[in-house]
Amino acid sequence: MNIEPLIAYLSKYIHLSTDEKEILSEHVSYRKYLKGQFVVQQGDVCKYESFVVKGCLKTFYIDSEGQEHIVMFAVENWWAADLGSFITQSPADYNVQCLENTEVVQFSYEKLEALYLLIPKLERFFRIIIQKAYVASEKRIIGNFSLPARERYLEFREQYPDIEQRVPQYMIASYLGITKEFLSKIRSQIISK
Amino acid sequence: MNIEPLIAYLSKYIHLSTDEKEILSEHVSYRKYLKGQFVVQQGDVCKYESFVVKGCLKTFYIDSEGQEHIVMFAVENWWAADLGSFITQSPADYNVQCLENTEVVQFSYEKLEALYLLIPKLERFFRIIIQKAYVASEKRIIGNFSLPARERYLEFREQYPDIEQRVPQYMIASYLGITKEFLSKIRSQIISK
Repeated sequence: MNIEPLIAYLSKYIHLSTDEKEILSEHVSYRKYLKGQFVVQQGDVCKYESFVVKGCLKTFYIDSEGQEHIVMFAVENWWAADLGSFITQSPADYNVQCLENTEVVQFSYEKLEALYLLIPKLERFFRIIIQKAYVASEKRIIGNFSLPARERYLEFREQYPDIEQRVPQYMIASYLGITKEFLSKIRSQIISK
Repeated sequence: MNIEPLIAYLSKYIHLSTDEKEILSEHVSYRKYLKGQFVVQQGDVCKYESFVVKGCLKTFYIDSEGQEHIVMFAVENWWAADLGSFITQSPADYNVQCLENTEVVQFSYEKLEALYLLIPKLERFFRIIIQKAYVASEKRIIGNFSLPARERYLEFREQYPDIEQRVPQYMIASYLGITKEFLSKIRSQIISK
């Protein structure tokens, strides 16, 4: 079990003693998924908050007409979950699926609640992480309503600098809420400038 | 300064000692706004997270065509802020305006950061509050994409049980992303059942 990337990430926000790192490692699990496997499926309760050590995932939902809408990607050092489902322990609105073979460190709901009591400074860490998720979620609402597709694409590239080569174009188009053809047009306009 | 409603609200999540309540009261401010006044204006940095003691507010943004979109209401025991702007201390995407004369307890960014160090259990409190905000924000994204207007209206009534009598119909229509006429039609269909 390689939880070093998680420890390094945590250390950017809080200082953990050797004992606390030990407690932490006893309360998380390490899991490998194959490309195509699901970490969460729409309708199930999201059991884990997953920290990505290696790999790439997409979060999406299927609308009433069967159309897939990607709302988030996750790569190394990101988190993958239906956070709303995890927090409320109610059925997930989203699917989280691996786009590559993926390795994650997972916090179950019960273990995380226990960890908050054992290592109270994790409250600070997760407060900050959830704040970031909230800001991203709000930016997405406002972006969808008010930014033109070209601007949304540029924001996507800034937010996910390394992902463009790792996922198919049609998924990026789905994330942006545009057709693959329109994305292709935007990209060639940007390159030709 | 009447911070009792805030203390009562906090006590649902964490236990504060008399000393801690004293420290808290020294780090917040009490503010009265008149109907029509703004707590946050789009483009300004949101300086405060405001707990509503009395009154009613709307959070909205103006799109590039000048159209107003209401994304949230707040009444007694709710929070009002452009939370994204507050967290990142960057310009607000939203406006927060009072629909009635309103009284709030305010946490400034600097005072709240100081409070986290003085009363670490506030980390827990705000982690939970931000989780709730996150869940509401996600539900709104998914609702807008996938729920019919009637369902969105019923969810609105559940989320804001007392607000329908306090705000004009056209604002509820704006929140739901439909016309006033269509809202009126939905309401009469529900009543006639």
